[in-house]
Amino acid sequence: MDAAEFRRRGKEMVDYMANYLANIEQRPVYPDVKPGYLRSLIPTEAPLEPENYEDVIKDVERVIMPGVTHWHSPYFYAYFPTASSYPAMLADMLCGAIGGMGFTWASNPVITELEIVMLDWLGKMLKLPEHFIAGTHGQGGGVIQSTASEATLMSVLAARCKAIQQVQASNPGQSEAEILPKLVAYTSEQAHSSVERASLIGGVLMKKVPTDDNYAVGGGMFKKMLEEDKAAGLIPFYLCATLGTTPSCGFDHITELGPICNKENMWMHIDAAYAGSAFICPEFRPLLNGVEFADSFNFNPHKWLLTNFDCSTMCYNHSSLLQNWQIPHGRRFRSLKLWFVFRMYGIQGLQAHIRKQVALAKEFESLVRADKRFEICAEVIMGLVCFRLKGSNQLTELLLKRITESREIHLVPCHLSGRFVLRFAICARTTDSRHIQQKEAVHSDAKNEVPKLRFFNINMSSHSLPMVSQ
Amino acid sequence: MDAAEFRRRGKEMVDYMANYLANIEQRPVYPDVKPGYLRSLIPTEAPLEPENYEDVIKDVERVIMPGVTHWHSPYFYAYFPTASSYPAMLADMLCGAIGGMGFTWASNPVITELEIVMLDWLGKMLKLPEHFIAGTHGQGGGVIQSTASEATLMSVLAARCKAIQQVQASNPGQSEAEILPKLVAYTSEQAHSSVERASLIGGVLMKKVPTDDNYAVGGGMFKKMLEEDKAAGLIPFYLCATLGTTPSCGFDHITELGPICNKENMWMHIDAAYAGSAFICPEFRPLLNGVEFADSFNFNPHKWLLTNFDCSTMCYNHSSLLQNWQIPHGRRFRSLKLWFVFRMYGIQGLQAHIRKQVALAKEFESLVRADKRFEICAEVIMGLVCFRLKGSNQLTELLLKRITESREIHLVPCHLSGRFVLRFAICARTTDSRHIQQKEAVHSDAKNEVPKLRFFNINMSSHSLPMVSQ
Repeated sequence: MDAAEFRRRGKEMVDYMANYLANIEQRPVYPDVKPGYLRSLIPTEAPLEPENYEDVIKDVERVIMPGVTHWHSPYFYAYFPTASSYPAMLADMLCGAIGGMGFTWASNPVITELEIVMLDWLGKMLKLPEHFIAGTHGQGGGVIQSTASEATLMSVLAARCKAIQQVQASNPGQSEAEILPKLVAYTSEQAHSSVERASLIGGVLMKKVPTDDNYAVGGGMFKKMLEEDKAAGLIPFYLCATLGTTPSCGFDHITELGPICNKENMWMHIDAAYAGSAFICPEFRPLLNGVEFADSFNFNPHKWLLTNFDCSTMCYNHSSLLQNWQIPHGRRFRSLKLWFVFRMYGIQGLQAHIRKQVALAKEFESLVRADKRFEICAEVIMGLVCFRLKGSNQLTELLLKRITESREIHLVPCHLSGRFVLRFAICARTTDSRHIQQKEAVHSDAKNEVPKLRFFNINMSSHSLPMVSQ
Repeated sequence: MDAAEFRRRGKEMVDYMANYLANIEQRPVYPDVKPGYLRSLIPTEAPLEPENYEDVIKDVERVIMPGVTHWHSPYFYAYFPTASSYPAMLADMLCGAIGGMGFTWASNPVITELEIVMLDWLGKMLKLPEHFIAGTHGQGGGVIQSTASEATLMSVLAARCKAIQQVQASNPGQSEAEILPKLVAYTSEQAHSSVERASLIGGVLMKKVPTDDNYAVGGGMFKKMLEEDKAAGLIPFYLCATLGTTPSCGFDHITELGPICNKENMWMHIDAAYAGSAFICPEFRPLLNGVEFADSFNFNPHKWLLTNFDCSTMCYNHSSLLQNWQIPHGRRFRSLKLWFVFRMYGIQGLQAHIRKQVALAKEFESLVRADKRFEICAEVIMGLVCFRLKGSNQLTELLLKRITESREIHLVPCHLSGRFVLRFAICARTTDSRHIQQKEAVHSDAKNEVPKLRFFNINMSSHSLPMVSQ
């Protein structure tokens, strides 16, 4: 394919992208395929000779689309959002054309330079303390990681390195092998699986701290664990606090945890993968109070700040401590997306996006609260509503089964205090009140013209409950 | 920005991309900026209100381009290539629109499904043994990592886990803390820095194996080290062999190393980050002989197989051994790029690309050999030529300084056996004989119309050497 054909095909692709996103509501949000579906649809080997572009692009609808979970459908309420916006897509196209690596300053000066400044812009948007900002002579600064998993791992490794140096400074004879088994990391029992995984990779013990009624870690329980572990000869060295846990969007009490970590000379990392974006709004910023005690702080603009994956931003207090900034050697020009998004939306536009999605969550919460069959299972603070049918877990499990089979909306469950709970997360940028209210048919069944099961019906009609309870 | 504006701006961006790549020769390949250049060109904070797209796009030439090292310029000969092709860019655009995460099958079935089948296509193109292929009931299979660094780390972690289990199986009383300090990993003294880094992250000792005259690790030296280490009570558990080392593109003798690893029950990982793509050509495939002994094998289609970054493919023998497939939790739909590239080029088109670049390296090698002032420092097998001026290192250091200052071509040095050596790697897809021969002016100095220093002149003219030797 030469430049002339790329001009033609690229423009067709832009239209395909715009059409896909504009008409995404018409596709069933969750695919109707079985594991292994794709293998039989395409050859078992790569072609020897080039194929026509027409044949390739035709296969997008035949082979690819049937297996897509449409994360940007306004009927997608599963997991947490992954961001999508036109400015970010344009920046990614440009990034693809420039296409150079950025593993040192010289390998591509602009990649290093724009990334440092964009992380400063972000730090200021979040009103982070000065020691997280690079500025022209600052000691802090930020870096873009691929995911929060990688950021957590980097923080565990940096903390491990620092802890070993500190122990050896006061006990010069001790080897790394003697120190490692004594090190203990901590995180919430509600933390994402990637946090425990980081400790496994780093070869350090990690303990789960029990949470309070709001599924949050407080200072009391944490302090108690530390005292017991220190008395047993262990060396607490690291805490991963979570702001916006995956199951229920709970917020650890970092104003209590931070001073404890500082006093104990422990590394405090804050994982705010989802919720972090919301802290650009003054009304949510208080939830970040305590960040001044942290050594590192991470969240994902690729979740909630309209910046397509991957773009996980990590800010360091005294960045010189971190010898290695990331796992991969090569890196894409990811800050370009942030630059386009910040400028095309402005801070106000980004705040509006956050506020709209939180308001939609509150709207859905009211619908649930108005229906006596349901209960809300955790305080609704951001864009996530945790709810269930009153009664046995089996009822809600059946409800989820029927929702999933309907393919009209998509959501996933979690467990909270032994209860089976549905998570309703506002995800797509285009989700609106009419989707929450489910006043329109999602897609009609052309064959018999009987309206399919809708979430609205399950939620509100008296017909469905008896079936659910069977 | 709404869909209508995206259609317009997206098409403009496609033209910008095509123009950028079509006219890239006219840009100086290496930027003329100092560290910190960018900060003064843009505001210190994000704008409160949205800006116009025109203002953003105008800044691409004003702010971004002056700091770009143009990796896809045909005058770029530094590092190793990073791939770029129009089909891959089109696939990445589509990936951006679909934009969903793929961390489990259900989160996006097509991401898992296409990736498995594309890795099988690739495995068959490379004629990998059956136990690296997933098929419908296979025990092997592959996964796309972000980079070779990440792939190496995953192999170290998997090997560490397996080694600890094996030691504990025969010595039930031993704790992980007792076993870890005894484990030893090995790699070539010529291996990439990311290999040693993987061992640091994994908390295991790694020893560097000295290389032979071809900068390759052979069985003799490796066996000798193993015997000594076992006699000292250590447990050899892992080897990272390299096919195509970074400094000189050397090839470890895996037909010798593999059987030793198998006999000692050690994990053999093969890092073929750059050279791996070439094994799709029958004439280069013999260099991969011995892969049948490996536990894991990795290379980067994002280097030499026309697939834009990131796309590092890792194949496993008995994939079930690897409990965790990658560091990040979320992942992009990267196999889409492979699918587009394989189909739009065909195997023959990809082979032609490899062969053309190897032929260009040979052509440059002849130019160097024809000039008695220079010497070739390592056998030219693929697209890399290592050469230097005869005599002291200082001469070649000065030559590189002048080449870099000229900004007409870009290359980087390495050290081989204490000698300062220039690496001339064929990188851009569009590099051609005329660029190697440097028969055209790269860019003229409009002010005084004096032709700037060209690599060709340095290489061939008798004027330049006296200056170089000063």
